[in-house]
Order: sequence, then structure tokens, then C-alpha cells
Amino acid sequence: MKRTLLLIAMAMTATLAALAQKQFTLDNLLPGGGQQWSELQPESKRATWWGNTPVELTQEGATNLLTGKSIYTMEQLNKCIPENVKGSGYSLSFPYADQPIAMAQSGGRRVMVNMKNGLVVMDCVLQRDAQNADFSKESKYTAYTVGGNLYVLSPKGKIEQVSHDGSTDGSENIVYGTSVHRDEFGIYKGTFWSKDGQKLAFYRMDQSMVPSFPQVDISKRIAETYTCKYPMAGEKSHEVKVGVYDVNTRQTIYLDLLGAKDDYHTNISWAPDGKTIYVFELNRDQNDMRLVAYDAETGKRQGTILRETHPKYVEPFHPLAFLPWDDTKAVMQSQRDGYNHLYLVDFAKCLATASIHTPADGSTTEDFVEVKQITKGEWVVQQMVGFNTKTKSIIYASNASDPRRSCLYSIDIKSGKTTLIGVEDGVHSALLSADGSQLIDYYSSPTVPRSINVLSTQTGKGKNVLTAKDPWAEQGYNIPEITSSSIKAADGKTDLYYRMVKPVDFDANKKYPTVVYVYGGPHAHNVQASWHWALRGWEAYMAQKGYLLFILDNRGSEWRGLAFEQATFRHLGDVEMQDQMKGVEYLKSLPYVDADRIGVHGWSFGGFMTSNLMCTYPETFKVGVAGGPVIDWKYYEVMYGERYMDTPQQNPEGYKGSSLLNKAGNLKGRLQVIIGYNDPTCVPQHALAFLRACEDAGTQPDFFCYPGGGHNMFGKDQIHLHERITRYFEDYLK
Amino acid sequence: MKRTLLLIAMAMTATLAALAQKQFTLDNLLPGGGQQWSELQPESKRATWWGNTPVELTQEGATNLLTGKSIYTMEQLNKCIPENVKGSGYSLSFPYADQPIAMAQSGGRRVMVNMKNGLVVMDCVLQRDAQNADFSKESKYTAYTVGGNLYVLSPKGKIEQVSHDGSTDGSENIVYGTSVHRDEFGIYKGTFWSKDGQKLAFYRMDQSMVPSFPQVDISKRIAETYTCKYPMAGEKSHEVKVGVYDVNTRQTIYLDLLGAKDDYHTNISWAPDGKTIYVFELNRDQNDMRLVAYDAETGKRQGTILRETHPKYVEPFHPLAFLPWDDTKAVMQSQRDGYNHLYLVDFAKCLATASIHTPADGSTTEDFVEVKQITKGEWVVQQMVGFNTKTKSIIYASNASDPRRSCLYSIDIKSGKTTLIGVEDGVHSALLSADGSQLIDYYSSPTVPRSINVLSTQTGKGKNVLTAKDPWAEQGYNIPEITSSSIKAADGKTDLYYRMVKPVDFDANKKYPTVVYVYGGPHAHNVQASWHWALRGWEAYMAQKGYLLFILDNRGSEWRGLAFEQATFRHLGDVEMQDQMKGVEYLKSLPYVDADRIGVHGWSFGGFMTSNLMCTYPETFKVGVAGGPVIDWKYYEVMYGERYMDTPQQNPEGYKGSSLLNKAGNLKGRLQVIIGYNDPTCVPQHALAFLRACEDAGTQPDFFCYPGGGHNMFGKDQIHLHERITRYFEDYLK
Repeated sequence: MKRTLLLIAMAMTATLAALAQKQFTLDNLLPGGGQQWSELQPESKRATWWGNTPVELTQEGATNLLTGKSIYTMEQLNKCIPENVKGSGYSLSFPYADQPIAMAQSGGRRVMVNMKNGLVVMDCVLQRDAQNADFSKESKYTAYTVGGNLYVLSPKGKIEQVSHDGSTDGSENIVYGTSVHRDEFGIYKGTFWSKDGQKLAFYRMDQSMVPSFPQVDISKRIAETYTCKYPMAGEKSHEVKVGVYDVNTRQTIYLDLLGAKDDYHTNISWAPDGKTIYVFELNRDQNDMRLVAYDAETGKRQGTILRETHPKYVEPFHPLAFLPWDDTKAVMQSQRDGYNHLYLVDFAKCLATASIHTPADGSTTEDFVEVKQITKGEWVVQQMVGFNTKTKSIIYASNASDPRRSCLYSIDIKSGKTTLIGVEDGVHSALLSADGSQLIDYYSSPTVPRSINVLSTQTGKGKNVLTAKDPWAEQGYNIPEITSSSIKAADGKTDLYYRMVKPVDFDANKKYPTVVYVYGGPHAHNVQASWHWALRGWEAYMAQKGYLLFILDNRGSEWRGLAFEQATFRHLGDVEMQDQMKGVEYLKSLPYVDADRIGVHGWSFGGFMTSNLMCTYPETFKVGVAGGPVIDWKYYEVMYGERYMDTPQQNPEGYKGSSLLNKAGNLKGRLQVIIGYNDPTCVPQHALAFLRACEDAGTQPDFFCYPGGGHNMFGKDQIHLHERITRYFEDYLK
Repeated sequence: MKRTLLLIAMAMTATLAALAQKQFTLDNLLPGGGQQWSELQPESKRATWWGNTPVELTQEGATNLLTGKSIYTMEQLNKCIPENVKGSGYSLSFPYADQPIAMAQSGGRRVMVNMKNGLVVMDCVLQRDAQNADFSKESKYTAYTVGGNLYVLSPKGKIEQVSHDGSTDGSENIVYGTSVHRDEFGIYKGTFWSKDGQKLAFYRMDQSMVPSFPQVDISKRIAETYTCKYPMAGEKSHEVKVGVYDVNTRQTIYLDLLGAKDDYHTNISWAPDGKTIYVFELNRDQNDMRLVAYDAETGKRQGTILRETHPKYVEPFHPLAFLPWDDTKAVMQSQRDGYNHLYLVDFAKCLATASIHTPADGSTTEDFVEVKQITKGEWVVQQMVGFNTKTKSIIYASNASDPRRSCLYSIDIKSGKTTLIGVEDGVHSALLSADGSQLIDYYSSPTVPRSINVLSTQTGKGKNVLTAKDPWAEQGYNIPEITSSSIKAADGKTDLYYRMVKPVDFDANKKYPTVVYVYGGPHAHNVQASWHWALRGWEAYMAQKGYLLFILDNRGSEWRGLAFEQATFRHLGDVEMQDQMKGVEYLKSLPYVDADRIGVHGWSFGGFMTSNLMCTYPETFKVGVAGGPVIDWKYYEVMYGERYMDTPQQNPEGYKGSSLLNKAGNLKGRLQVIIGYNDPTCVPQHALAFLRACEDAGTQPDFFCYPGGGHNMFGKDQIHLHERITRYFEDYLK
């Protein structure tokens, strides 16, 4: 009798626990879940600046973010905005600091409204199929492309065709005004207005010598091919020129660029007076970079400002940022001392003799004008946010206090005095006011889901406008324990940071199946001091299913300095795997990790790492899921691939050693390779060649693909994909 | 102590059993296993005829199959054959009944040697890239194609280009001298020599209006596309003409064909005198067929010989076979009475009034000459082997004694008297002597691995030259029990035949996982009375692993008559699945079948059936492997597809109902779809569209592909594939 009661009581407790502890679905945890995902995101505010007034945008209108006072209501605005702009939804901004102008953008239409009197100040419509629209708020001209050609639309609605030999046959042989060099070197666009909006610098790219990679569109009645220009490592690359169009003379000139035709021309910036254009120019081998000045009127080379070489590679990534109060000086970002830091380039101070540095790592720098280091230390500037024009200081984000953080600082250019802005924890992103005296700071830290603050960039202090509650805890989910710490890399000295996610209802006496999630490639990191240590939603799902997750940023990943990143040069995968195996060694030392049930999962570079780990350490990893993997670097693009691997001709051993085509026969565990069938980045040839190699070698990988999918899956496909990944571990690792 | 001894004894027994009972590997059981497979094949002999002398070909030479007397040794022959023919291996034949001529063929080279004196009688080399070579042994002319054009090579080595507008750009828009209509209607070539070899009938196919299906070759440095003309159901089809080239006049004329441009022109045959050409012409709807005679000199239509229509479809499949002793009569095969039978067409007996028949099934026949039925019964003629010119009888194979058999008979044309040739059991194939008085009979039956006999076609008796031993039993393998019987179809009356393979060491008290292997489509059968009831090697492998296999030929499959085959018309899959579910019902009635562990596997039409069964009966089938499946008949070709389904425009409900794109959301069990990535028959669009449909519907099929692979896998890929299929059942059904 007593026992029965006890059982009933236990059952009730279990029921209550079940009620209290909600179970995550994948829709809750991944953006593809749409509304279900949104509901579990920390509360936020949509903020922007109107000059120096912080503004909150809501469904109802815009209010002062600090005072809550209404600036305009949606009702007011809607009256002024033409119906056909409103209908399709639009984005809003306040382009002029001191004018009551709101700009609504919808598709190719741009409408400016005076919020005071409701008058439409501007109403421009780009032609159908216009792409790459670039608006100069000074001159109100808009540059855009149609097909391969570049056009400029005047504020009065007049269209001028700037280029005429761009490809209009879909061949993409000649294209104007688009991003070039496959978006490497920080390039994301192909048009650059001068400050006054009277001149437009633009890219012209000749890809006629680049092979087209074939893709098949199976959604058609009868499948059709389409192609994308894809320069593969060691093969012919495209050729880029920089033109300058003058909206007044309607003439175009081309810069008299240095070097070989397939060199890289990156990070274009205008001198504030619109007379000079600066281009970072890099040889194809990516080990010799010059900053060169050109006359914007004639295109003639004015001179080389500075030069950096490195036995491995130099990577210009940011354009110059001229001081708002001094047209003769600009801030440059460079890794010349081994860490990304800010430098002041003084164009007025030409050096009679070039200042040459030749550090022990074999790199060289040659400065032909005065270049002064602003920030310094064994940490990196992660972002240059802007300037405080009043205090003549720079606002930037760095991980000076902890490699996993991104905190905000201002530095006085003259004195070098640094001021922390906001708390020195977590990961911050900032929206700077017009004069740079204030910023809106969005941040999260491992225990803070979201905090929004309006801060003075001079004092670093200000007012909190939102501290979000933990939506997971609030809604009663069973949240896994998430911790972060470091281990030593395979070199025995470098700290590597990891995130560990313990299974829910963790019991240290049990042994858990463990999944290593990995990316491992350059320009990325997985572990940071943001909410839940940057937990990916899927990890919570797996923890809920009883897995332990381990995520380690190995050497080669970002924000740890050049030596850390370049450790992988010419043999991608090797050092990265050695470090990951240190992680596995650590995992195996934990009593609650089941060393016989270790899996691995990653996408893109992480797909390469996953396949590589499965084939290189077949006794360690039982199950792997490799998404969109690089299988052989010879199938990857020139720009990224040759930076890290040189060409297949220069580095045959490196290519051979890192090719999974040669390791396919080692596969023992269960490895599922998954791709977007139309992946334009890691083209399907990678995965398919791997299948062929496995078939020839008699090993049995699994494979799946998303027809129509690209390099990553979104929306419903993202949910489907993670269901699939989870099922694979459930099938074979549990 | 006693117990220990017993255990030792048991262990010893187990070891002895293991020694005695060898385990099959997949290499043992599948042709892809090469030598390992060959070693487990029943002994055989390579035989041919030299006129009326039966010959055995061996590594050492040729001997009389009956007497063993040497005809020539390889040493003798090798002396006469040029080195570069020998080097690459060659095939041998004896084209002339009464001449001591051996013909060696190697690539494009054809060498004839007089075996008596060693002289080279002919030595022709086709130009490089020659394809579709067709040799007239009478005139010694060879027709062949290069690119899209047709050529003729004279015995003296002179090349004549017959066509000039064939596509040479790889487009395949216009092609001459190749098989047309995608090898349907029994078509397998595109050139037809007249009996005397002086005239050549040939196909000209215009495919310029047919879309090209894109395929990707990933074996190239950078993947490349290539295309194949692929007319999909309901879309534009190709247009075929028939030309006649005269080697003497070197002139080409075209037949004045009947009907629409996209009609089918099939089964071309020459009148023995070379003056008339007969073509079976069928409308695109495939329900109206005429046999039409043309003047071979002028191409003019001489008249319609006969016409057959059917509310479902008519399918001409065999050319006319003229009686060797009477040029005015030919044997035709037709299903006009509901079963494939032989008919004698008497061209000399034109009817004043057409003989019209209109059976109850709605079909019609109109004969304009006398047509007499030769064979008759509720069984089919499976093959017309040839004629005995002495007895004026026809030799054919039929399943008159049992639907699963294929036995040999001769029938006296005049009297209709039928004589059994050889035993009335098993499955026979015959090589007929020059005069048809004898044949070499290869046969196997469920218990006879192989028997080779030289038989008189008149008496049906003769001499056994080989009775192979069971190589599996001889070599000590544990052979599963294989049985065959019948159940009733879903119509409650039709007998359906099955093969059942029981797991090795079968124990009727256990419950076994069971796999249904299925094809199910027209023009094929899986169950026949050949060795082991036509067991497929993989089934033995699965039986060895403890599975029960069940293979049922449902309605729609071949050799059971027209009504049986046409039950599936316009709704492929439905009746076939109903019958397969009858098989499952039977399986579930067996105490040793585990109803909770039923899987299904099939390829091509069987892949369609497998996917369909998995999605239509998700509660029945737990695991399926669907190879090269049809997913939606709209992606399949015009000829085959429209015969059974009409066009998507004519039969939208049928296409919708049979499309697995609409059933993708029903998937519950584990279904792996496997394709050759370059499958030109069931193009990858099928499987990929299915994946997309499942992704959209939120179901999770598995997928695999063989880059470079076609509709079926061969060699090492075949082994790899079956390892994969097996593993899938082991993972999820065991």
C-alpha cells in the first residue's frame, strides 16, 4: 500500500517535472523555426541614430530611445509614403543628422520624406532588375548595375549608363560595379562614392578566362544547367580594374594599376577631398602588398604609401578611415606586428628615406610616409567603430581583456589614453552617433542574454535601456550547463578556448556520448563570451537528448594573432586536427565522457575538418556529419585557397596531404556528408569526388543533399537538416 | 569435468561446421566480383556453329563439340592474325557455313582468315571513332557511323560517306544509322542490310526539337556538363525517317512514311529479294499500328499489309522473319489474340476484302493479306529461334508448360504439329545450326545448374555434352532453401509466381526479418524455373545473414499475356502494389516471418515500386532501398512512359496519383534512394526531386549516388552497392 502511494507520488513528481521543464524543439532553437524561434530569443529593441539622438523604431513609429518621447508615428509617416512603397514593406533610416528627413527603401525605390511637413523630398525608382544599388546621401546619386553594366541615377531621375561592354548574355564574362575577388579581403561591394558624391570609383572585372562551374537546376520541368564563374586554385583567375566616373563630366577614367593582371585590388578608399583614391594592391601570391595612391582625375599613380610583405601571406582587410578633423591622416588596420592593430598614416609626412622593418618572422614593412602605431598588445582590434570628433579619439572593439570577448574602447589619438566603454565582459556591438560622442551598445555575456545601453564614448558610462530576461529560464526549459575554459594546444604552450555543453540532468557518474562540433578555419571562431558562451541552438537540442558537446577554437581560427592563424599555412587541416585531438585527449580524461562514443560534426571548413578527423583518426571518431565540406583544396577558389595553401603547382605535397581523396580508404566509422546540391561556394564536386574515392577504395560514407540548396541551409531546410544530423548521431552514436 | 568435455566437443563441432560451411562473400555472388564470382559459376562451354558442325571454343582453339576433334588450334590461327588484332583481344566467329573461314574482330578491325591455308581473306579497318558497325557477310560491306553521319566501307577498303547533314558538333541533333526511339520496340540498331548486302536501310533521326538533359562529369579537373537528348513524356519527341542506300549506285532514297512526324517506325525487315522493305508503323499514342510495305528502289509506299489497334496500346516488337524456302511468306509475332504468338503472313494472298476482327477488349485487327495463326494458347512465344529448312518448321521457345519456364519446341508450319526439343523443364536458350536441323541447347532448371545438349530439332533428342555439378555444394557453401510457388493476385483469380529464399540454418520456430525484392514493371520477370529459381546472388548473401527473401512477379510483368501486362495501364504502380501486398499478406501468414521487420528493395521500376510501397504502405514496410527509381513518370521518356501512362496532358490523374513527389510526406520508415549520378535512363532529376519533396514535406529519406555511374552499377561499384544495400538492412531491419 505504502509502496503504491510512493509510486504514485513519484509519478506525480515526474509529471510535474515534465510540466515544469519544457522540451526544446528544433524550431525553438534555430532561426529556420521562424516565429517559434523568435519567441525564445532575448528581448531586444531596434535602434538607430538620428544625428545625435538615439532612436527606437517600433511598429508604431519612432521614439527617443532614452526619453521615450515620440519623434513620429507610423501613421504620420504612412501618410507621406506612396502606397506602392508601403505595400511591399520598407526599411527606414534617418540619413541626415540635423534634418527631419526619413528615408524609406523598398526594392529599387527610395523615398525621402520630411517628417515635419510631410513633403516628399526625393522619390527615385531604379530600373527593374537593378542590383548593387549604392546611394550617396551627399549628392543623392545612386549607382547600380543591370546585367554586367553600371548605371548612375541622378536625384532628378536621369539614368546614365556608365559602362557599355559588360556582359548582358548571362555569361558574366565582363562585370562592372560588383564585388570582386569573390568577396575576399573584406570586399563586399563594387562601387565607392567620393565623400561629396560627385565621383564614383568602381570595379571592372574580366572573368572571360575563368571557367564556369556547372550547376543543375532540377526544379525546372526538364532539369537545366546554369553556370557560375569559379576560379579554382592554380587555374586562371579573373582580372580586375578600377574605374572612376565623374557625374558632372560623365567621363570615366581607369587607374593605372600596378602589378600583374590577376593581382588583387582591395579596400578602395577616397581621400576626403575626392582628389585621391587609395588602393591596397596585393600580388596573386598574396605575400606582397602595397598601399598605392592614384589621382582620381587622371588615374595616374601618385606613389606607393607603404608596403608589407610576409613569407606566408599578407591580408589587407580594411579600407583607410580618414580622420574627420584632419584630411591628411587616416587610420589603417594592419597585422604588421603580428596582431591586428590601428595605425595612423600621416600622408603629409613623406619620409625622405623609407622606414623599413624586418622582424624575425621574415616579414618586411616599408613606409614611405609616417605610420604610427596607435593600439598595441598581444590582442587584436576586432572592429574599428569610428571616431569621436570632439575628443579626437577612435572607438574600437578589441579582445584585450580576454580572447573570447569583444569589448568597446576609445583611444585618444594624441595621448594614447584608452577608456573602456561599458562593461569589460561579453561581446559588444556598437552603433555610433553622428559626432561619435555616444554609442548604442548591444551586448550579451555568458549570463546576460542581452543588454542595450546608451553610453558616452568619452566617459564610457551612460544609461541602460534594456536588460533582457533569460527567455529560456522564464519559459521553463531545462537548460544544459554551458561552460568555457582553455586547454593547451598541441604545441604545448598556446591556450585554446573551448565551450562545453553538458547533457541536461547531468550525472557525473554516467558516461555520455560526446560530439565535437568544429569549424576550425580562418576568419572565424566558435567560442566567445556572449550569451551561453555562443551556444548554437542545435547544441541545446543535443544536450537535451543526452549528449555532451565540445567546441574548441583551434590554431588557425581568428582573433588570436598572425602566428596563431598562420600555423596552418600550406597544410590546412594538420595543425587544426592536432589541436582538436588535444581536445579529445582532454575529453577522454573526463570520467563522464564515453571515449567509445565520440562523434564530430562541422560545416564548410568544419566539414573538411570532420571528414579529415574521421579519415585520419578512424579509431577515435565513431560518427561524423560533414556539411558542405572541402574535400580537396584544388577544387576551392583561388583567393582563399591560395592564401593558405599556395597553388597546387607550388605546393603539391600540401595539396596531396590535405586531400581527402587520398584518405577516403581510411574511413571506418559512420560519416555522413551533406551538401546543398547547388552550393556555389564549396561546389558539389568536392563531395561527389569524395564519394567516388570512397567507392573506389571500398569504404562506405553516407551522403545527402538539398536540391536548390546553397552553401548553408535556411528556413525549413535548416530544421530538416538538423533533424537529419541529430538522427545520424541517434542512430549510430547512442 | 564431464560438462567441460561436452563444451569442448560442442566447440569442436561448431568449428567443423564452420570449416564445412563456407561463407559467401559478395565477390562470390555478384559478377562484379570477377574471378571470385566466376569460380562459383556452374561449369560451361563456349559453343558456336560452323555451318552444321557444333563447335567448342577454348583457349587452345576450336574442336567439334560432339566428337572433340580439333578444328584448328589457337596456335594455327594466331599465325594468320595480325599482331595488332591479337594484342587487344578479339572475338571469333565462323560466318560461312561451308567455308573454312574464321573471322576475328577487334575494335574496328575485322580480319577473315582461311583456316585451311592461313591466308588472310579480308582485313578491314574502320576509321577511328567508328561506331555501330554492321557487317554484311554476303557483300562484305560494313556500315558504321562517325559523329552523326553514316558511312559504308567496301570490302576493298573504300569509304563512302552516305549522309552529310548529321551533327558533328556533339549536339546529336541529327543522327544517322543508330538505334532510334530509345531502344524501345525491340530496336537495338539503326542499319539493316538487304539479304544480298547490296542495299542498306538505315534510320535518320532528327532530335533538334528534343531538350538535352544535363549531366555533370565530376571526374574532370573542373566539373563539366555534357548533355543527352532526352524526350520526356508529353514533351516534343524526335522525328525518324528511313533511308535506303544502294552500294552500287551510291544513291540514297527515303521511304515515303505514313503518319505524323513523331510516329514510331519499327522492326524494319527486308523482303528476301531486296525489293521491298517492311516497316511496323505506330502512332505516338501507341494504339494504332500498321505494317507497311515500301519499294526499296523508289521509297514509294506499296500498301498496308495489316493493322492492329488497341484501346490501351499495341507494341510491335519483332521484325518479320521470311521463310527461307518461300519468299512470299513471313512469320510475324503479335499479341492480337491476347498472347504473343506466331502468325504466318502470306504476301501472295492479298484479300479482296480486308479481314477484320473486333474482339471484346476493344482492339481491332485488319488484315489485307492472309494471316494465319501458327501457335495458340494461354501462354506466350518467348522467342522465335529460327527455321528448320528441311522439315519446314519453326523453332521457338515458349512457356506453354509453365509460366516460369522457357522450353524449346518446333512446330510444323503446315500441320501445326508441335515437337518438344529437349526436356520440358527449366529455362532454355538455343543456338541453331545453319540449316536449323540441330541446335545447341543451354539450359538450367531449379536443380540443374547447367546442361548443354546438341539436339535434333526434328526429334527433340540428341546428346548431352555437359551436365555441370553444383559449384556451391561442391565447394561446401551453406546453401539456403529456395522454393517457388504461386499465390492469387489482388483480383482473386490470377496466379502470381514467387520465389522464396529461406535463411540458412532455417528454424521454423524463429521469426526472421524479411525482404521483398521487387521489379514489377513490364518486359521483365524475376521468377523463372532456372537454376535456384533464378536466385540473385545478393539473395543468397542476405539468406546467409539471416533474412528471408520473397520475390513475386506481379501483374504488369512479362510473359503472362496482354491482359496481365495491361492491367497497369494509365496508373503504373497501383495494381502492381496491390499484388505485392498480397505477397506480404501471405508472408504475414507464415509463422517464421516477422511482420514487424519487413523490408523492400528494387531497382529502376523496382526502385519506383520500393519508394511507392514505402510511401503508400508506411505501416507495413520498415526499411527500403530504392535504386535508380522513377519518381514521377513525367520525368521518364516518351516511348516507354506514354505507352503505359499516355501523356501527362492526357492522363493528369494517373501522373498525379503515381507521382512519389505527392507521396513524399507519407514516408515513415527508412528509405535509402541510390542512383548512378550520371544515369542516362532514369535521370537524376527523379531522385533529386524526391529529396526536395521530402525536404519540403519534412520527411527523411536517405540518399546515395555513384558519380560516373549509369542506370546500373558494374564491377567494383556493384560490390560496393550491394555491401551498402546489405548494411542498410543490417542497420535498420535486424
